[in-house]
Amino acid sequence: MSFSEHFSIDNIPYGIASNDSRPKGVATRLGDSVVFLKDLGLEVSNQLQSALDQPTLNELAAVDKTELQSLRKSIQTALSDRSVLSKHGNPIKDVQLHLPLQIGGFTDFSCSKEHLLNASEAVMGQKSMPPAAPYLPIGYGGRPSSIVISGTKITRPYGQYRDGDKVGFGPSRALDYELEMACIIGKATLLGDRVSVSDADEHIFGLVLLNDWSSRDIQGFEMNPLGPMNGKSFGTTMSPWVVTLEALEPFATQPPVKDIPAQPYLLDKKEKSSYNIALKAEVLADGQATTVCQAQLSWMYWTFRDLVAQQTINGCNINTGDVLATGTVSGAGDDEHGCLLEMTKGGKVGWKTSDGQDRTYLQDGDGVRMSGYAGDGVGFGECVGFIEPARAF
Amino acid sequence: MSFSEHFSIDNIPYGIASNDSRPKGVATRLGDSVVFLKDLGLEVSNQLQSALDQPTLNELAAVDKTELQSLRKSIQTALSDRSVLSKHGNPIKDVQLHLPLQIGGFTDFSCSKEHLLNASEAVMGQKSMPPAAPYLPIGYGGRPSSIVISGTKITRPYGQYRDGDKVGFGPSRALDYELEMACIIGKATLLGDRVSVSDADEHIFGLVLLNDWSSRDIQGFEMNPLGPMNGKSFGTTMSPWVVTLEALEPFATQPPVKDIPAQPYLLDKKEKSSYNIALKAEVLADGQATTVCQAQLSWMYWTFRDLVAQQTINGCNINTGDVLATGTVSGAGDDEHGCLLEMTKGGKVGWKTSDGQDRTYLQDGDGVRMSGYAGDGVGFGECVGFIEPARAF
Repeated sequence: MSFSEHFSIDNIPYGIASNDSRPKGVATRLGDSVVFLKDLGLEVSNQLQSALDQPTLNELAAVDKTELQSLRKSIQTALSDRSVLSKHGNPIKDVQLHLPLQIGGFTDFSCSKEHLLNASEAVMGQKSMPPAAPYLPIGYGGRPSSIVISGTKITRPYGQYRDGDKVGFGPSRALDYELEMACIIGKATLLGDRVSVSDADEHIFGLVLLNDWSSRDIQGFEMNPLGPMNGKSFGTTMSPWVVTLEALEPFATQPPVKDIPAQPYLLDKKEKSSYNIALKAEVLADGQATTVCQAQLSWMYWTFRDLVAQQTINGCNINTGDVLATGTVSGAGDDEHGCLLEMTKGGKVGWKTSDGQDRTYLQDGDGVRMSGYAGDGVGFGECVGFIEPARAF
Repeated sequence: MSFSEHFSIDNIPYGIASNDSRPKGVATRLGDSVVFLKDLGLEVSNQLQSALDQPTLNELAAVDKTELQSLRKSIQTALSDRSVLSKHGNPIKDVQLHLPLQIGGFTDFSCSKEHLLNASEAVMGQKSMPPAAPYLPIGYGGRPSSIVISGTKITRPYGQYRDGDKVGFGPSRALDYELEMACIIGKATLLGDRVSVSDADEHIFGLVLLNDWSSRDIQGFEMNPLGPMNGKSFGTTMSPWVVTLEALEPFATQPPVKDIPAQPYLLDKKEKSSYNIALKAEVLADGQATTVCQAQLSWMYWTFRDLVAQQTINGCNINTGDVLATGTVSGAGDDEHGCLLEMTKGGKVGWKTSDGQDRTYLQDGDGVRMSGYAGDGVGFGECVGFIEPARAF
């Protein structure tokens, strides 16, 4: 399937585009056409008119859901007229896409039981669950500054790591991707407020794909006891199109049944609180794609609604443009490992690319392409990044 | 000493103030007077004129250091004329102070060996150093959204915690402060760039006091292996005045000699790379102050320059308004514990307030006041917060 099929009239995602003749503006994608929403001359409120004029989606994301739903309908109506599309559509190859939001906070959770079990086995030799993981979505504060738009080159990071019984310093020797999704916060809260899991959708503008690039040697050395930092903060790639919950609603599904009863603040009244989204990760070596993982968002033990509730149960405020991510999406099968740490059992088991090259972790020049597809013309397109060699110290 | 003595003509910190008749603007403090810098009619560049008109310090913090130094001299010259101060000074009781910056990223490091040793003893029964701590300043991604200005009430957070051999959910039963300082990033970098430790001052706008409120029961349950999150993100209090490195230079001093040779990126050419700043934490119970800690910034094993180098060695970009904090500032003595986790050995050893009340962790209604003084009329004033009862679930 070509990515153009991810963007039917039933999708209508939001992004930020520019081209040679115009500055950044709010846009959507239909097939392989990008439409600047201002061009449609929609009759919308002053608030929405202003939001469509901005160089980020933040103002739009903060708009009330009811108004956003009517905007969505207006866009669908306008673009159903093929003459409108042919007049205002820009071939996607002629536009530049940009990081769609000014990111506020970034929390990366760990929602996949399989990832936690596989990662612990890779690092410590046996599967074990972190003590709190059955009770709440554990997570860490990611680095907002280094979230970049799909296509941005990622430089192999320098850092300190264990090297036998010594400590080494140099370019990472264990560069990995993590196949993730994230929700973008729309409506903000005030410090002290909580968002109940059942109300969480009111605060979620939409979803994106995320590649949480990870340096396993730097991370492994630094993370006890304060968690990962430099092993992650050198770059996180985000897909350009924010797909709204309205577009995803037909693909809503139940998450796994909880192993133990959830605490009251994580008891969700909505039954289909997750989404069927088929995710794929490919490693691109010398232009050749090798599929390294196929996984389903719906396997995640915790939902985005759970993440909003967890983030705010202590009164922590969320802001428009905040990113709450799933952590690595993995399944139980051997072709369902959402990162190379799992797939190579900590770098110990090699694998071959489709054209026979040997790999454990990523090499300079390698790329990683992620994609996500819900169904019936609603998908996320791709989230791509390539590894540049480390800069000499 | 009254806090007015922290703000002599040799200090000239920057903050954001407003009053009944005027909106937020860039201000400084001299004694107990607050002066809106616009009022001084300084002859400065258009860039600086614009920066002084903003409701945050971000634009000012991004200005080149040479220009900031000339601004500082102009302010000092203007305010040396007492008639100028009497014309433009506003009694501090008549102005409202605001969070001085739009915070981008927030990293909280752990720069005190004594804190790491004492905290591990409190939690695990014996002193131990995290494996990476002798080699680099370990840290975690803090929550930028919940950094608040001194004086903001802090609500006791709800969360999950260990309760005997069960898992409990409710208001935190182990609420703590952490006595910290932080540097505010001025000049930004691009993704992929590194800042050498010797150049780090070019990127540091100034320093503030920070109270990294911590819920020890929530934190203790959640933090293995991804680090602290909800145990910290319910609120972090920042002092209102950013004291510049220029004002602090007379108090520059050597940090402790390193136990093991630092990696090349942490080898600082500047000898006096730390500052003599005397820090104090007091618990305020029923209006009565009890001094719970006196400590020195210069005891910190890692300097702010080290923190900038560590944050960027992997190519992570820093933005104007980012906050890099020291973590708890502690010493070796019993009256040098920068948090109650250390002082009470994990809540096991009680203590008495100056008027004889029993305490381990903080009670509802308690306040914590932090202050910092470098010397000769240069200090940080106070950083205060009070605990509100948890909101009913």
